[in-house]
Amino acid sequence: MALKPETASAILSVDLNALESNFRLVQSQAPTSDVASVIKANGYGLGVAEVFQALKKWNCQTFFISTLEEGLALRALDSTCEIMTLNGLFHNAEYEHISQKITPVIGSVDTLKRWMSCANDLGQPLPAVLHFDTGMNRLGFDAAEAQGVLSKLEEIHEALDIRYVMSHFACADEAEHDLNAQQIARFADIATHFPNTPKSLCNSSGIFRYPEHHYDLVRPGYCLYGGNPTPEAPNPMSAVVHLKTRILQLRTAVKGETTGYGASHSFDHDTLLATVSLGYADGFLRSGSNAAKLYWQGQPCPVVGRISMDLVTVDVSALKTPPVPGDWLEVLGENQSVDTLAQACGTIGYEILTSLGERYTRDYRS
Amino acid sequence: MALKPETASAILSVDLNALESNFRLVQSQAPTSDVASVIKANGYGLGVAEVFQALKKWNCQTFFISTLEEGLALRALDSTCEIMTLNGLFHNAEYEHISQKITPVIGSVDTLKRWMSCANDLGQPLPAVLHFDTGMNRLGFDAAEAQGVLSKLEEIHEALDIRYVMSHFACADEAEHDLNAQQIARFADIATHFPNTPKSLCNSSGIFRYPEHHYDLVRPGYCLYGGNPTPEAPNPMSAVVHLKTRILQLRTAVKGETTGYGASHSFDHDTLLATVSLGYADGFLRSGSNAAKLYWQGQPCPVVGRISMDLVTVDVSALKTPPVPGDWLEVLGENQSVDTLAQACGTIGYEILTSLGERYTRDYRS
Repeated sequence: MALKPETASAILSVDLNALESNFRLVQSQAPTSDVASVIKANGYGLGVAEVFQALKKWNCQTFFISTLEEGLALRALDSTCEIMTLNGLFHNAEYEHISQKITPVIGSVDTLKRWMSCANDLGQPLPAVLHFDTGMNRLGFDAAEAQGVLSKLEEIHEALDIRYVMSHFACADEAEHDLNAQQIARFADIATHFPNTPKSLCNSSGIFRYPEHHYDLVRPGYCLYGGNPTPEAPNPMSAVVHLKTRILQLRTAVKGETTGYGASHSFDHDTLLATVSLGYADGFLRSGSNAAKLYWQGQPCPVVGRISMDLVTVDVSALKTPPVPGDWLEVLGENQSVDTLAQACGTIGYEILTSLGERYTRDYRS
Repeated sequence: MALKPETASAILSVDLNALESNFRLVQSQAPTSDVASVIKANGYGLGVAEVFQALKKWNCQTFFISTLEEGLALRALDSTCEIMTLNGLFHNAEYEHISQKITPVIGSVDTLKRWMSCANDLGQPLPAVLHFDTGMNRLGFDAAEAQGVLSKLEEIHEALDIRYVMSHFACADEAEHDLNAQQIARFADIATHFPNTPKSLCNSSGIFRYPEHHYDLVRPGYCLYGGNPTPEAPNPMSAVVHLKTRILQLRTAVKGETTGYGASHSFDHDTLLATVSLGYADGFLRSGSNAAKLYWQGQPCPVVGRISMDLVTVDVSALKTPPVPGDWLEVLGENQSVDTLAQACGTIGYEILTSLGERYTRDYRS
């Protein structure tokens, strides 16, 4: 249940202007391609309804989600946009895909057969994206299956309206990874078999690294939400997420005492602590215990002790003037990006985003 | 958006009978105490409305939550139960606490003053729980503040209706931790100052370890949901959470290939892989990459490669007969408890529970 800002214990602000600016930046990076938006996992944790409405306002027409459940929720919001389920044609779900006009991304022989059989039964072509694996080994036709598919293209084109042929990078966030060039070459080879079908290869990192391989459609996800698509260089994207939480209580831990569960942090001198309303149940990952930082007026406040379910304790001894209960601490914002917090928690910014909790009062700015 | 079970890609079953059985077991462990339920963080991730209704049906009357937002949501479900906010009297939120009859757990001098001042303005006592810190160094009156509080007890008793005096264990999950005895002794000392006020000390682990220190009210949380309160011994609780997900695709990774983002796992022999609909956006923590397991018909299937946002790949080469797409893999259930999965992910079962995602089709059994 959301509270008005003056009473809320933590506020997550989503800057839809920054989202727009990121979408526009992708468009300018890929001027001859269409730009789809990947809004799976509740719009990377930011709220799929708000993210979708904003992107649609800026004329995005094609949306990739992950599961059929997400597709149905999105279709309930909008009857016309193009929806593609990256996780494929779900078990027993042919009827839902057809009736709700949700295009499956097809990457296995058995789902291809099922979908073609539906099309034949209906007597009309069904839309599909064909997904060829080029090195991810997760979803998509593998090399052997691809040979089988390519040998039956006439039959497939007859049964299906192939909207796109696609593949997905495994290591595009790493500029120098050998697999990138291999995947690009393999996809180029597949592409020769589909001269008249639109193609799609690039995710966020691919868009910024490989302008010569944008093909017809690019599929940004993470970078739309402010994540850095090229981690070795400054982030070209605008920050979309700002998160702040309140100090509940200040206390002095006396030399020799410990704090938190498991008494994992001992104090070798008297230390001023602030306990704040934030925990792993809010997606402030427990792996950030004794490692992550919050910020008060631009100054870092290191987490001491284990992060609890609903609380975290930070050391505020080094601050020039002590804060008071009710003051805000920055979790994500000017001083700490999603990528930086992720590093302190031993993960990637994507997990920080998709873990953003439900207890925050959410404030969408446009 | 939930789907019918035959179409759902992943199903989270919550066994409310097991929850009842756990609540009854706590009652039998603490036969002379009242039993409150801790249902913060969306009922430890299981759905606060369903968990609350079940516990209320079994005559639980007192509920601890964390934030005011949670208190308001709970009050909207029920007008009579007793609701206590463990995170205290929230900033600027006196009116909401009073009008919605939400009792703050008071553990700092400034919130005590604010609440007493409200009571004086209203001309009637306000309910409160007084929280004395005995070693957690997180929330609660510290030793110095406690002296001040104890010196003004007459004034406090006049302004406030003190429902309980409480403290909270930092290390009760570790049987031999020195801090446990210290906290018990410190609380016993505080207790002497409140001869006529009900008292509460024990969380899940405390209930099972320290029957002689149950006082008037025990506050189980984790153990109600099936977590083991005494990790060094077999779990006395019944499993509440069962989670299963579908195989989307089977593939053979060829010797020398890799799988997943960052190509973090290489295959030294041809390997049959199953890709399933489950990822860190569902709370299957990314820290379980190359470490956690799923189960197929009781047989372990190790995660290979990094866990993605919506997908995970497991090695099914060792299975006696290969599974097929659409088959269910167990994430939590007979073969894998919340505590076991947590260990594989380098965390505790509490974080596994509170991370349980919103995309699962949820099935409540009672």
